[in-house]
Amino acid sequence: MTSQKVSALKSYAKLHQFSHAFSQPEQHLKHLLEDKNRLENFSIRVPGFFYDYSRQRVNQNLMQQLFSLAQESKAKQKFSQMTSGEKINSTESRAALHTATRDFTRAAIFLDGQDVMPQIKQVNHQIKAFTQDLHENKISGHTGKPFSDAVVIGIGGSYLGCQFVYEALKTKIDPKINLHFLSNVDIDNFGEIIKKINPQTCLWVVISKTYTTAETLANLNQALLYLKQHHLDPACHLITITAKGSPGESSSQKHLASFNMFDYIGGRYSVSSAVGALPLSLAFGFDVFEQFLKGCHAMDIHAQQAPDNENIPLTAALIGIWNTHFLGYPAQAIIPYCSALSKLAPHVQQLYMESLGKSVTSIGEPVDYKTGCVIFGEPGTNAQHSFFQLAHQGMAFPVEFIGIIHPVFNQEQTQSKGVYNHQELWANMLAQAQALAIGKDSQDSAKYFSGNRPSSTIIVNEISPETIGMLLAFYEARTVYEGFILGINPFDQFGVELGKVLASGIRKHMAQKNKNVPSEPDSLDPITHVYLDMLFKGSL
Amino acid sequence: MTSQKVSALKSYAKLHQFSHAFSQPEQHLKHLLEDKNRLENFSIRVPGFFYDYSRQRVNQNLMQQLFSLAQESKAKQKFSQMTSGEKINSTESRAALHTATRDFTRAAIFLDGQDVMPQIKQVNHQIKAFTQDLHENKISGHTGKPFSDAVVIGIGGSYLGCQFVYEALKTKIDPKINLHFLSNVDIDNFGEIIKKINPQTCLWVVISKTYTTAETLANLNQALLYLKQHHLDPACHLITITAKGSPGESSSQKHLASFNMFDYIGGRYSVSSAVGALPLSLAFGFDVFEQFLKGCHAMDIHAQQAPDNENIPLTAALIGIWNTHFLGYPAQAIIPYCSALSKLAPHVQQLYMESLGKSVTSIGEPVDYKTGCVIFGEPGTNAQHSFFQLAHQGMAFPVEFIGIIHPVFNQEQTQSKGVYNHQELWANMLAQAQALAIGKDSQDSAKYFSGNRPSSTIIVNEISPETIGMLLAFYEARTVYEGFILGINPFDQFGVELGKVLASGIRKHMAQKNKNVPSEPDSLDPITHVYLDMLFKGSL
Repeated sequence: MTSQKVSALKSYAKLHQFSHAFSQPEQHLKHLLEDKNRLENFSIRVPGFFYDYSRQRVNQNLMQQLFSLAQESKAKQKFSQMTSGEKINSTESRAALHTATRDFTRAAIFLDGQDVMPQIKQVNHQIKAFTQDLHENKISGHTGKPFSDAVVIGIGGSYLGCQFVYEALKTKIDPKINLHFLSNVDIDNFGEIIKKINPQTCLWVVISKTYTTAETLANLNQALLYLKQHHLDPACHLITITAKGSPGESSSQKHLASFNMFDYIGGRYSVSSAVGALPLSLAFGFDVFEQFLKGCHAMDIHAQQAPDNENIPLTAALIGIWNTHFLGYPAQAIIPYCSALSKLAPHVQQLYMESLGKSVTSIGEPVDYKTGCVIFGEPGTNAQHSFFQLAHQGMAFPVEFIGIIHPVFNQEQTQSKGVYNHQELWANMLAQAQALAIGKDSQDSAKYFSGNRPSSTIIVNEISPETIGMLLAFYEARTVYEGFILGINPFDQFGVELGKVLASGIRKHMAQKNKNVPSEPDSLDPITHVYLDMLFKGSL
Repeated sequence: MTSQKVSALKSYAKLHQFSHAFSQPEQHLKHLLEDKNRLENFSIRVPGFFYDYSRQRVNQNLMQQLFSLAQESKAKQKFSQMTSGEKINSTESRAALHTATRDFTRAAIFLDGQDVMPQIKQVNHQIKAFTQDLHENKISGHTGKPFSDAVVIGIGGSYLGCQFVYEALKTKIDPKINLHFLSNVDIDNFGEIIKKINPQTCLWVVISKTYTTAETLANLNQALLYLKQHHLDPACHLITITAKGSPGESSSQKHLASFNMFDYIGGRYSVSSAVGALPLSLAFGFDVFEQFLKGCHAMDIHAQQAPDNENIPLTAALIGIWNTHFLGYPAQAIIPYCSALSKLAPHVQQLYMESLGKSVTSIGEPVDYKTGCVIFGEPGTNAQHSFFQLAHQGMAFPVEFIGIIHPVFNQEQTQSKGVYNHQELWANMLAQAQALAIGKDSQDSAKYFSGNRPSSTIIVNEISPETIGMLLAFYEARTVYEGFILGINPFDQFGVELGKVLASGIRKHMAQKNKNVPSEPDSLDPITHVYLDMLFKGSL
């Protein structure tokens, strides 16, 4: 098999030459932005989604070279292989078929000779019927009361994406069932949630593919104790979302309902599977979830079919690689000027950093270039009053601004200084992008802004199931494109295994102490022993 | 005046030599950790607070050199100057007296010949009396109903610190008054909050030193409209926290009460002033707030008086400088294994990135070294299932783990795999620190962990007003120490000004359009015009 390293490609070397050119003063963004056609040449508009990279440190020659890199790395072929069910997750010999969960056009997608579409449709059908019955109170709790709340037990990919979509949509649509997220094994996460729910009207939704995730099972056990304390039968209150054949769907785990998730969809790409479908349909109804899927699908089709230089996720992936690998920015901020999108950055943080934080190519060669970067962000204008000082005058990092044309709020509003609050929000967003790019000279060195700090801007019309779907699928496609171009596998996560192994050793030691079994000689390091003494003694 | 640049100091050059030595294999953490006395030699314990830097990439010679850097840069003298009221914020000719707000020992602190302690004590006395009356229902809303909620209107430093403390303490103490934070000018932030409150039982607390912050005034105007719509008099529902003589305390702004904040306390350092005192006393009572102040004060005393090598914030500041400037890490993660501390990272993100993201020294020389870095974080174990893949196998970044010995939850609990959930939490925290440090060899390159990734661990006994105060003051002291050593001013933020100026130009243009005044020729750039057209047209 040939090398997958991006550094082995011809266009990679040429891009390094470009990066030297871009350190020259004449390539400062304030000059690049003098071109009247800048926005037209460096933006892409598709129905419902506008992507502007005119304030990125690029020019047309460079973009051509970046598109050559995409060609040489066969990024789009890999994307097609992914959507058609090839085992693109090579290290785990799995397909990566999150796009199949929202595919409204293909008749069939074959995996190991079997069409996966019927099982995907069947799960959605089951979820639609179940949540409809529940909303019509044909299904109610042990004491006959209709459900009002659901606690979603899951961590990482079983949590962050769903939380992002829920928080965004609930600004617009009143939930039929309120969701609470019990992710952390911290018992105080549990303690805070039970303050807010009525046990008789609460569902518990456990999400774990293998039904072995330590945190999720620990929280499930605590939830089962809670049900028992309130004399409630799990058969009336517990829903499991898990792989076929896992202990979670067997009768050994009493439950009200169980829905399948599949091993060809990884956790951080699973929002459009049952992992998101059930909780989000509980909250908003299956129809809303289906609109969300249609938004995802529209972006998937675009990502796969649009020509390279009109392809938003591919272009964004190339810009990401240019910024991280060639211009050397170690972090990227995602700043939605929209409070409803406050959980977007934590979701993309996982999606991107877990997918791209790799040290080997997809065929196991150690890489000699950076993979991934830190993703962080808070909504604007909040971020301006928090960490933007660093963005303007300290260590530079690219920013992705997100603006929404129509806010949700439609009641009477005041003007301040002649503008509505939503206009004030936009004035700030537009000003930040410009200030970062052009900077400002000053005699007073403390008030000097070097500028030349890159940003992109994404605009969508409004917060709706479709636009949230488009945003989600945009970040998914962008991330996998970046992985494909870098030659790494964006679907595995072996880097989390070592911690699990070491935690297991420590857990065994604790379990012995809990049973007052005299400590055997163990393999724990001396520092860990000091901490265990603190914990068991109960003081520093 | 002599140069303030840290790069001009003798020990700085020596540290650069050390950084070369630390790139050698024999300085890998797995070797450093073989020393049986590693933890003892590289940790500091004070009553209620344990700081472990044994898994940082340091040795004793290096630490000596770092302490020399602290000596040479006169860091502790500057800290003393700060606490005694000297105008250490040189670019704005102001003192930085946040420590005075919790000083229980000094008789007087003079600023411009005037003792500030009486005015600080007076404000606290007023807040104590006011909140006590309110809790005893001697003060109630316009319709006579007792208050149940308060919306805190403020942004940046008037928001993040208070939110951190509130979220942490409410796990432990049921609020008498529930707080909601209206920070973003996004109208949907307002829209979400009014879904949760009853107008008749809700207070509005406006925090703005100058009463000119655009976002805060826009939100205030919207709040005043809301009160009017509900026929409620601001004189019964509005509280202002503002500087003496600002429009916010004058009778032109009808209000129930007004409390002073002072220009010798900057926003991001203001939690222990009226900015935190009033909301937190509303929520938990002034006595709880006073316990919090005592925790802050204990850390302040330690930060100022402990010898360098027993001084936690100073040591942490030196480690931060070592990691950022000499080992080249561009980001740092704060990972509390405690859901109650979920808002710590956003607070420290502002505190640190706004304080240290500077391009000039405190006397205006351009710096030739990095200042600040990206701070980000989520609670563990959530973070393990999110972005720790990058931490283990991608771009390395130092991690600060925070553990709490006693959880808040004290009801019946289950065991899973022989351990309680809180123990599972600790097993993971301890395992992560060890896994990052030692790594793991593997024949399979995808399962190889390079290790040598640094971390610190902080342990406190429990979530309480005192420990939250210690944590807050620890991060404050650490940040200012880092600024003092780097020779920069950690109290100004000129980097946010340019964006405000540009936003003002865009706002004026919008205001004209709102009034249908024909557009005058303006100084806006063509890209901004395209966006304004989108917004006013209402579609992409």
